[in-house]
Amino acid sequence: MSRRQVYFNSWSEHFRRPFGAIQTGESVRFRIHIELKYVLSVILMIHKDGETFHEIEMVRKAVQNKEFEASFQTYGASGLYFYHFRIVYRDRDQTERTIYYGKADDDCEGRGNITEDRSLLKQYQLTSYDHRDPAPDWYCHGVIYHIFVDRFFNGDPHHKIQNPKKNSFIYATEGDTPCYIKDENGEIIRWDFFGGNLSGIIAKLPYLHDLGVTALYLSPIFEARSNHKYDTGDYRTIDPMFGDTETLQKLITKAGRLGMHIILDGVFSHVGADSHYFNQFKTYGDGGAYNNPNSPYFDWFTFSRYPDCYDAWWNVRDLPSVNKSNVLFQDFIYRSPESIIHRWTKMGIGGWRLDVADELPDTFIAGIRSAVDQHTTKEEGKVLIGEVWEDASHKVSYGLRRHYLEGGMLHGVMNYPFRLMIINLIKQKITAEQAVRISMTQKSNYPDEAFRANMNNIGTHDTERILTVFRGDKRKLRLAVQFLMTLPGVPCIYYGDEAGLPGGKDPDNRRFFPWGREDMETMSFYRSAIGERRKDINLQVGNFFPFSIDRLFGFIRYSSDEAFTIAVFNPTPVDQAIEFALFNDQTDEGRTERRVRELFSDGILVAAFDFIIKRK
Amino acid sequence: MSRRQVYFNSWSEHFRRPFGAIQTGESVRFRIHIELKYVLSVILMIHKDGETFHEIEMVRKAVQNKEFEASFQTYGASGLYFYHFRIVYRDRDQTERTIYYGKADDDCEGRGNITEDRSLLKQYQLTSYDHRDPAPDWYCHGVIYHIFVDRFFNGDPHHKIQNPKKNSFIYATEGDTPCYIKDENGEIIRWDFFGGNLSGIIAKLPYLHDLGVTALYLSPIFEARSNHKYDTGDYRTIDPMFGDTETLQKLITKAGRLGMHIILDGVFSHVGADSHYFNQFKTYGDGGAYNNPNSPYFDWFTFSRYPDCYDAWWNVRDLPSVNKSNVLFQDFIYRSPESIIHRWTKMGIGGWRLDVADELPDTFIAGIRSAVDQHTTKEEGKVLIGEVWEDASHKVSYGLRRHYLEGGMLHGVMNYPFRLMIINLIKQKITAEQAVRISMTQKSNYPDEAFRANMNNIGTHDTERILTVFRGDKRKLRLAVQFLMTLPGVPCIYYGDEAGLPGGKDPDNRRFFPWGREDMETMSFYRSAIGERRKDINLQVGNFFPFSIDRLFGFIRYSSDEAFTIAVFNPTPVDQAIEFALFNDQTDEGRTERRVRELFSDGILVAAFDFIIKRK
Repeated sequence: MSRRQVYFNSWSEHFRRPFGAIQTGESVRFRIHIELKYVLSVILMIHKDGETFHEIEMVRKAVQNKEFEASFQTYGASGLYFYHFRIVYRDRDQTERTIYYGKADDDCEGRGNITEDRSLLKQYQLTSYDHRDPAPDWYCHGVIYHIFVDRFFNGDPHHKIQNPKKNSFIYATEGDTPCYIKDENGEIIRWDFFGGNLSGIIAKLPYLHDLGVTALYLSPIFEARSNHKYDTGDYRTIDPMFGDTETLQKLITKAGRLGMHIILDGVFSHVGADSHYFNQFKTYGDGGAYNNPNSPYFDWFTFSRYPDCYDAWWNVRDLPSVNKSNVLFQDFIYRSPESIIHRWTKMGIGGWRLDVADELPDTFIAGIRSAVDQHTTKEEGKVLIGEVWEDASHKVSYGLRRHYLEGGMLHGVMNYPFRLMIINLIKQKITAEQAVRISMTQKSNYPDEAFRANMNNIGTHDTERILTVFRGDKRKLRLAVQFLMTLPGVPCIYYGDEAGLPGGKDPDNRRFFPWGREDMETMSFYRSAIGERRKDINLQVGNFFPFSIDRLFGFIRYSSDEAFTIAVFNPTPVDQAIEFALFNDQTDEGRTERRVRELFSDGILVAAFDFIIKRK
Repeated sequence: MSRRQVYFNSWSEHFRRPFGAIQTGESVRFRIHIELKYVLSVILMIHKDGETFHEIEMVRKAVQNKEFEASFQTYGASGLYFYHFRIVYRDRDQTERTIYYGKADDDCEGRGNITEDRSLLKQYQLTSYDHRDPAPDWYCHGVIYHIFVDRFFNGDPHHKIQNPKKNSFIYATEGDTPCYIKDENGEIIRWDFFGGNLSGIIAKLPYLHDLGVTALYLSPIFEARSNHKYDTGDYRTIDPMFGDTETLQKLITKAGRLGMHIILDGVFSHVGADSHYFNQFKTYGDGGAYNNPNSPYFDWFTFSRYPDCYDAWWNVRDLPSVNKSNVLFQDFIYRSPESIIHRWTKMGIGGWRLDVADELPDTFIAGIRSAVDQHTTKEEGKVLIGEVWEDASHKVSYGLRRHYLEGGMLHGVMNYPFRLMIINLIKQKITAEQAVRISMTQKSNYPDEAFRANMNNIGTHDTERILTVFRGDKRKLRLAVQFLMTLPGVPCIYYGDEAGLPGGKDPDNRRFFPWGREDMETMSFYRSAIGERRKDINLQVGNFFPFSIDRLFGFIRYSSDEAFTIAVFNPTPVDQAIEFALFNDQTDEGRTERRVRELFSDGILVAAFDFIIKRK
């Protein structure tokens, strides 16, 4: 049986309408094309996540017509549906046979596969959301800059270290390579600092503004023992090495004057063992859950044997987990008028990025969102982004499906899947066609608003730096930056990448910004790519239609037939000519090709590791 | 046979005359007391180190007299002689028997033991020196202060770190506890600095002068990667974190104006792998023995497989050993007019302390001494001290007997045996009598000038700090300090001990000086003990006669019958009364007891962990 004898394509509105995620309550019309002669029945097998299948008979559109149709209305709470098609037919020797049509083997949506073996069947996904939940405009149209505070700039005029912590180390020079200081068991025994601080960020606002960034996402700034501060010691205090409330206020105000927003990193899944709440080392007086079972914080934690055995994030002893369903903790973080979210959001920050969002229950995230939203003004919304590493549209954590992108929780997530796609494409580990399928899958799985609000990156404090990923090849770096600045979602630049800073995995990816030693070539193409995005509203929020032309990858970012932007990338080391005979957008629709042909023609050459952007 | 039937005491001039070490060529008269009836022969068995025994018949002084005498003239080059006595007699049943009299089982000189088993016999030692070789007066009368430069004081007005080294760490606060930064194999991967420097020492000269010290012995100051700088990188350069030649000159000059001398640490046994000479890491350009077999430094080193297998100090790969018999190395260190010894000595330093003197051949030390002596002026001599951990009078290293204390080489050595004796006495691990025997043994084995020129300590950068040895007990600390300031030899204070700084073994013993947090009680008894020594010439250079009175330990420091100082120490936790019936000075001579009785009388109480010093 040839592939085209049975055909469905979830990305073609001919086959599945409307495209992508829908609001719960809406209907979807499915259509499947079947060339078989004696079709006995075609069933749309669809079920809501966790429920049993609905079997919906698909009806032949007309006599002799090869297409079967059915509609399905979503219902109840938002969430996922999974579906495939079951076809019963009689073959040439009159035997009754059953076949299934499901998602392709590459786990992408779009066109699928026939199988006779149900166990090999992969379900298509249909996402339903509760309500459209767009991120604020300033965010969607912006360019973010991710600062690991200790490693950016020291605002002290003499580069004196502000309030150094006892028994910690300061790097001798700003050019030093970061390293962990561990004992023979591999435990960190001292923390290492360069001395970056909030006044350093204030001092560099003109630089950042000039670079073109419009929002700063800061690594955690609350008091903590480490340099990264994911081990919060006191949520109510800015770490004294970084500054104080006044410095933060000054940063927010001064950034605001330059049209820039501040996004804070909210770390609410765990605290530091050395914290006001756990207080293992009595740094914070005699109280704390570790020292006193009558501590008001005792119920925040889960002890299997008091006080030494307790739940901890990834079993890192230094990071005791907090019980997020504890009402007092919820009050403390977001519910009470003096809560942490209120305390800091009301100062005028633009929003929060939630660390390890998968560790936070949906209700907890919804609680935070609700608190954050109370600070939304008519002029300006607040944003809430989550740290998720995988496709967030169908993430399961701790056995539970996550609904954080379906309205009222996260506006978007950190888009690591796009990072991987960009790197794999430029490293030729995937083809252009595969990149189209990967990006289309994300587009169709995510609610549209979330898809546009994802915080895209090509590197963070948790990954190798992009220049190092490409072993220093600046042509590849430039191409990746161009992807970052043109793909849907909000680009986020990891501090120093624009200066040509290399860096392997943690801690090497956390070197100090190379002030005075910036690579000007890199800086220059960052500036130009940022500038290009800032002036092109299609690149910021336009609809997205990717395509491949042989080894070329491209996409249209689209507002209307009168205004669109097309980018074509050559991720290979040899020049490639455009040949429309090989055009493929995976949708079976002609619109994208037509638009691309408007601006490009056969034979246009895209140089090795180069790109062409054209606009109408 | 009772103990007193045969008796000899090497510390009594009645039995061995003259006392102690003698100049080669001089004679010694031995006498032994024998109560046995039928003595057939008494033989003085004496041999020069490495030669065979001379058997010298001892002659009965007169008929019926119980004493036998013989003289022995030393000869040839200086060195050691070892001796015992062989006695043949006839016992009551007329059997001919041979017995031997040798050194006591506790390895101390003085009174000895009889044995019939030659294999149990311990030889007495007789030291002959080449010539009297006194250390300069300023040294012998002085009080030294040992500074680990990185840990003392930062002279920068803002405590900014001077020329920090790339990829090293700076302690965040001066109160931090030192720690090594190692990889999983235990290899040091980064060096740690507090930022003490020469200008810091200059700034603290008034403090040091006020404390009463008259010489500063500095840990190595030449360019090197580590904080301790025993891994010399360049002998011709002051480490830029410490200062430069000009700073050193300023230190010498300013110290000189306060009557203070500077003693440098000479590290000539090995260099750093990261050095101008070895240059494993190409820090010093492309040359160096590691990189080029044609390097002028190639022959300094011994490669078993070039370039990765080489001789190194204690097999520490970072410290390649230098071949001290290489003439070019000798020229470089001391022989040529531009040699390292000349280069720095001519600036006006007071002398050198030679690191790991046991690793330097006698001829090499003699070469250094000869170079150092060229800078002696009529007004002022230079001093040369060696690092030796054991009794240096009979040290063997690499199979060779060391002659460095016999004239023309070292003036003295670091006196770790006295440190051990002081600690053991105060910890009651040895009795007062044992302390007398230990100190008398050193007095009799060392040439007298060396004995007075030893650099005494109760702690260095290589040991636990004295306060920590005594677990913070300041009464014991005070007693130990009093020992240090009154025993023969030149006292050397390890920086910070006077401020009550604790510290376990390396690296904890290298904390930063607790400026502003000094323990004033400790400081005060240091000042008073130093002051007492400085005003009492007996304590500085007087002859030394120790004694015990039961559990009390004491000594007389003696210039003449008209001028002596007597100290009596109670190293026990209970008050002790002086009872002359229990007086014992191990010499069978009455002089010391007579003098002690002059100033003390029966019944005088010495309080627990206290001492009494009286003078005539």
